[in-house]
Amino acid sequence: MKYRFNLRTWLLVALMALPLLTNVAFGQEEAAAAADPGPESAYSSEEYIASEGYATFAVNNLWICIAAALVFIMHLGFATLESGLTQSKNTVNILFKNVWIITTGILLYAFWGFNSMYPGDGNGFFAMGSWFGGDLNDASLTTAEYNAGYTWWGDFIFQAMFAATAATIVSGAVAERIKLTSFMIYAVILVGLAYPISGYWKWGGGWLDARGFYDFAGSSVVHAFGGFAALAAVLILGPRKGKYTSSGIKPIVGHSLPLAAIGVFLLWLGWFGFNGGSALSADPKAVSYALTTTSLAAAAGAVASIFTSWIVLKKPDLSMALNGILAGLVGITAGADTVGEGSSVIIGLVAGVIVVFSILFFDKIKIDDPVGAVSVHGICGMWGTIAVGIFSFDPGHSLGVQILGTVAISIFAFVFSFVVFFVLKMIMGVRVSEEEESEGLDVAEHGAPAYHIS
Amino acid sequence: MKYRFNLRTWLLVALMALPLLTNVAFGQEEAAAAADPGPESAYSSEEYIASEGYATFAVNNLWICIAAALVFIMHLGFATLESGLTQSKNTVNILFKNVWIITTGILLYAFWGFNSMYPGDGNGFFAMGSWFGGDLNDASLTTAEYNAGYTWWGDFIFQAMFAATAATIVSGAVAERIKLTSFMIYAVILVGLAYPISGYWKWGGGWLDARGFYDFAGSSVVHAFGGFAALAAVLILGPRKGKYTSSGIKPIVGHSLPLAAIGVFLLWLGWFGFNGGSALSADPKAVSYALTTTSLAAAAGAVASIFTSWIVLKKPDLSMALNGILAGLVGITAGADTVGEGSSVIIGLVAGVIVVFSILFFDKIKIDDPVGAVSVHGICGMWGTIAVGIFSFDPGHSLGVQILGTVAISIFAFVFSFVVFFVLKMIMGVRVSEEEESEGLDVAEHGAPAYHIS
Amino acid sequence: MKYRFNLRTWLLVALMALPLLTNVAFGQEEAAAAADPGPESAYSSEEYIASEGYATFAVNNLWICIAAALVFIMHLGFATLESGLTQSKNTVNILFKNVWIITTGILLYAFWGFNSMYPGDGNGFFAMGSWFGGDLNDASLTTAEYNAGYTWWGDFIFQAMFAATAATIVSGAVAERIKLTSFMIYAVILVGLAYPISGYWKWGGGWLDARGFYDFAGSSVVHAFGGFAALAAVLILGPRKGKYTSSGIKPIVGHSLPLAAIGVFLLWLGWFGFNGGSALSADPKAVSYALTTTSLAAAAGAVASIFTSWIVLKKPDLSMALNGILAGLVGITAGADTVGEGSSVIIGLVAGVIVVFSILFFDKIKIDDPVGAVSVHGICGMWGTIAVGIFSFDPGHSLGVQILGTVAISIFAFVFSFVVFFVLKMIMGVRVSEEEESEGLDVAEHGAPAYHIS
Repeated sequence: MKYRFNLRTWLLVALMALPLLTNVAFGQEEAAAAADPGPESAYSSEEYIASEGYATFAVNNLWICIAAALVFIMHLGFATLESGLTQSKNTVNILFKNVWIITTGILLYAFWGFNSMYPGDGNGFFAMGSWFGGDLNDASLTTAEYNAGYTWWGDFIFQAMFAATAATIVSGAVAERIKLTSFMIYAVILVGLAYPISGYWKWGGGWLDARGFYDFAGSSVVHAFGGFAALAAVLILGPRKGKYTSSGIKPIVGHSLPLAAIGVFLLWLGWFGFNGGSALSADPKAVSYALTTTSLAAAAGAVASIFTSWIVLKKPDLSMALNGILAGLVGITAGADTVGEGSSVIIGLVAGVIVVFSILFFDKIKIDDPVGAVSVHGICGMWGTIAVGIFSFDPGHSLGVQILGTVAISIFAFVFSFVVFFVLKMIMGVRVSEEEESEGLDVAEHGAPAYHIS
Repeated sequence: MKYRFNLRTWLLVALMALPLLTNVAFGQEEAAAAADPGPESAYSSEEYIASEGYATFAVNNLWICIAAALVFIMHLGFATLESGLTQSKNTVNILFKNVWIITTGILLYAFWGFNSMYPGDGNGFFAMGSWFGGDLNDASLTTAEYNAGYTWWGDFIFQAMFAATAATIVSGAVAERIKLTSFMIYAVILVGLAYPISGYWKWGGGWLDARGFYDFAGSSVVHAFGGFAALAAVLILGPRKGKYTSSGIKPIVGHSLPLAAIGVFLLWLGWFGFNGGSALSADPKAVSYALTTTSLAAAAGAVASIFTSWIVLKKPDLSMALNGILAGLVGITAGADTVGEGSSVIIGLVAGVIVVFSILFFDKIKIDDPVGAVSVHGICGMWGTIAVGIFSFDPGHSLGVQILGTVAISIFAFVFSFVVFFVLKMIMGVRVSEEEESEGLDVAEHGAPAYHIS
Repeated sequence: MKYRFNLRTWLLVALMALPLLTNVAFGQEEAAAAADPGPESAYSSEEYIASEGYATFAVNNLWICIAAALVFIMHLGFATLESGLTQSKNTVNILFKNVWIITTGILLYAFWGFNSMYPGDGNGFFAMGSWFGGDLNDASLTTAEYNAGYTWWGDFIFQAMFAATAATIVSGAVAERIKLTSFMIYAVILVGLAYPISGYWKWGGGWLDARGFYDFAGSSVVHAFGGFAALAAVLILGPRKGKYTSSGIKPIVGHSLPLAAIGVFLLWLGWFGFNGGSALSADPKAVSYALTTTSLAAAAGAVASIFTSWIVLKKPDLSMALNGILAGLVGITAGADTVGEGSSVIIGLVAGVIVVFSILFFDKIKIDDPVGAVSVHGICGMWGTIAVGIFSFDPGHSLGVQILGTVAISIFAFVFSFVVFFVLKMIMGVRVSEEEESEGLDVAEHGAPAYHIS
């Protein structure tokens, strides 16, 4: 199939772009207005730098910026993990999707998402987005007056890196058979519109936050959201050809375990920023504690899934070990700052066991998720959120509310994803043809294979 | 061809090494003299640590050190990007060149470059270099007295990581047919001698700086410099055999797009340090703002080049998407702290369009640049520098001066590179034989292929 | 051979797990007791944040946390370096071992190692370990009262990342023929029990520290330890089949030099944290100075080994260039804060020469070390430690004590490793069968090859 931007596609794109362009125009105008008082400078004044508390603010904001860089590198981690666990004939396609997600993700978050997720006030369920641009002359954006931990732009760049993660999780689950243009539109809607909505519920001060729901760095807000969005997409999409045959399940093995391992190690590295940065300052106690619980859970997740899969599959399975690390990381994400060190080990161990059985379960019921994204992010994201209700040393955290919150976000993600994906299926189709799938998306969609090793 | 260090080669190497050795000897002597007053310690005194402003200085310097680490990882990014976009039979050669560039680059910057680029004063055009070694007992090097943002060594290590970038840019453009020893000598001269000269013009306070030329993090000082040095080298070197045939342009595809994608993501990560560190302190406003404009431009560059190449080439092209990211990054580098957020998106979009047409243009006029380095770094570097003259909110930035600056640096790089490369061609040749090119440089020059996958 | 957990294996595992489980139980109990006074919070109090010295403590601790992340990424560096330098049929096995080492390494350090290595007091030779968990309400763990540079958890996570390095070094040397379960048990004992013992001798304030032995970041404590433990293991294990034949040495080349290069660049990046973090604070002078000497030595190591191997092997050898970088890094690790910049270049140059001849020497005497770990870490670790006695500008550092220290640690590592490995050989065997070795460990042990590139 040739990829033309046909009329239907163009209309869809144009429809989506309209509000954004309005936002830019508006944003530029605003910025122009703001610049009126005189020339702006991106640098703090000497008075401010010499003022009390400046150093603390500087180290806080620096950590948020570095954490943003670490979360950014998770997108390379996802790209290599997903590539490694799938067939070499679909590698270009996966890398292309990941470039698309991170780049449009940042732009959409600037044009709409940031202000939609953090509206300041609102009805608790939904807020309109708008261009995020701020005024460099406005001290209430550039100093601790805005937030003790970061400037307006530190806040934006850290949150923007998070936003794209949701669609990246889906990318792995739908790999090897999804139609590129459909995925591109789907990802844009998911990252641009849906993620800020449920994100607002908790982190933007919406209805879940008001009920005392706790999700430190996003076991639910990011991971369960992505995992259950992925589940809906996979259900509509169906399994890859040849996976579930009349003679049983035929494993479709990944093409490069080194790539997959690189991915998981980079994801772990990125999680230092994901969880560590979620302390929202460089608070020595909070940052070092979160990194400790995060690493303990990752380690415990790997060990648990190594032994679990060894017993179940009768061999030491590398991809299960790698998924165990991710399971532990996803599991500890909701409570990294609020559970004991011993509890973080237990949370990781449980996540490492869960992920093995969950992957086998979904395979058994013929839900084809090439990289185990639904299990790692969806199921372990739920587990991590619920675990806060069990292990937290803050008596304010309630098991019931934790369950409510993770279920609410997961259902929202599932339904939203289902509807969007279903509509896309009706309008333009979501799956490549059988010939294209068999040929591989790299040649069929991109006209170029990923490898030429002579 | 066997690589012997023949007489001519040795003479050249010896000639180059002479002034450096003098510098070491001198440096060691100086250091010895400096050590006389008593034992040095690399640690700050307790009094200094307890003094006002220490924390601010510590966080500033820390950020410069971390930024140096991030810029360092760009060299891995370049190594994998260049490897990925070229044939597997030349992979060892590219990796070897990249190891050579970063390691000799650091040493040359210590022996000559740092003090040549930052002489403190001088005639504005050229300054002699010397061994950089500083005295640990000298408070004017180790405290905010030296600079509010870093110590002498923080300054050195950050700048040293930048220095090698120029030659790395060339490395990609001349790949697959350059003679190793010639490139090694060329890279040493370019990094060691040429880069500090035009670097001095702007960042060392030379004539361009005096005229109000602005280049925040090096769209011209680093990227246009590298890109136009590359253009000169490629012109002398000629295209790869079999690329431009009587029956048209025959694409020579890269051997591993995952490697290329890893490279571009690592380069983006490194750019957090390249641009963020160029704030030259941890100023919360400046650092977070630079990271925001940098990421927006990178994202916009990718989106623009995805759609541009899709329309032109009729397919979604991964390597164009990757080059679009780099184009946006190079484009925003000159003005990351002095243009609006909306402007950074526009700068990135334009860069993403430019890079596609530029790559196609150079291919059309039979200038063979395997990785698109001239377009990405040269052309987009020029664009980014000029864009400051258009979009800057600092009224002191003039379009005319920006054009003057980028043209001056580009011409200098081109001419210097042309002369050196031409002389090398006369003395020892710059291109491998046809047999070696066809066999691949890995076996021909290094006696070992890069891959043995059974 | 099928991997069953047979009775003997289970007994061994259970025996090892017993004290650890006791520690957890105890730790949980303690934590429960500690929580009694009221709900803990991972965040510092507002009073503390506003207090004098807080910003300095925050930046110090932040650097230690970031340094821990950098050291963490060295484990990916080792994984890819070792994979790249060995055959593709053993890649899964190597990656699996590296996942095992870093994950169990962190857990063991939590359960035993940290308190065993830093007992606070003791007999100077050995201390019992215990669960590390600390009390978040205890200001003597969470503020500068604990240490001016980090909290209890910052200390833990930084040291935990170091701990696993020792076993990772061994992993490369024993690659391609070691039995997986035996290595897993061996690694656990080495990281969990042995490393903290000799680590205590120096960094925990034990007998070597009392004698004035100096090892800034672990040329001996980490690298010589790992290198000589590896030597013992390799001696017992014997060379790979087909390496040393009656017709001479048959090189077994690595399967992917890009993977190896990625590994070395990541290791260098990680060394910014390994050495920079060993300043144990963000002291501007100390951190920037250590990064400078570290980078100079790495660069010099590469240049020296490029020319040395070129002269000896008659070709520009990439893997020697890469090992030269590592040699320089290992060499400077003991004295990065206490030798001059010129000395750091010399230390790196010497290391780069040593490593080439050492690798050739071990190959000549038929000690088969696929990645050169004994030479890079063992021999150059010794050299770096001794170099402190030669080049240090601190008159308190004595050549005799430096030799004593590095020899003591190396012998301890060798003997400990030899005994454990020998016992494992007796109990369960340490080497795979000839058929498995020839088939490759990936299929033989893990039932899955690393690559499926169509």
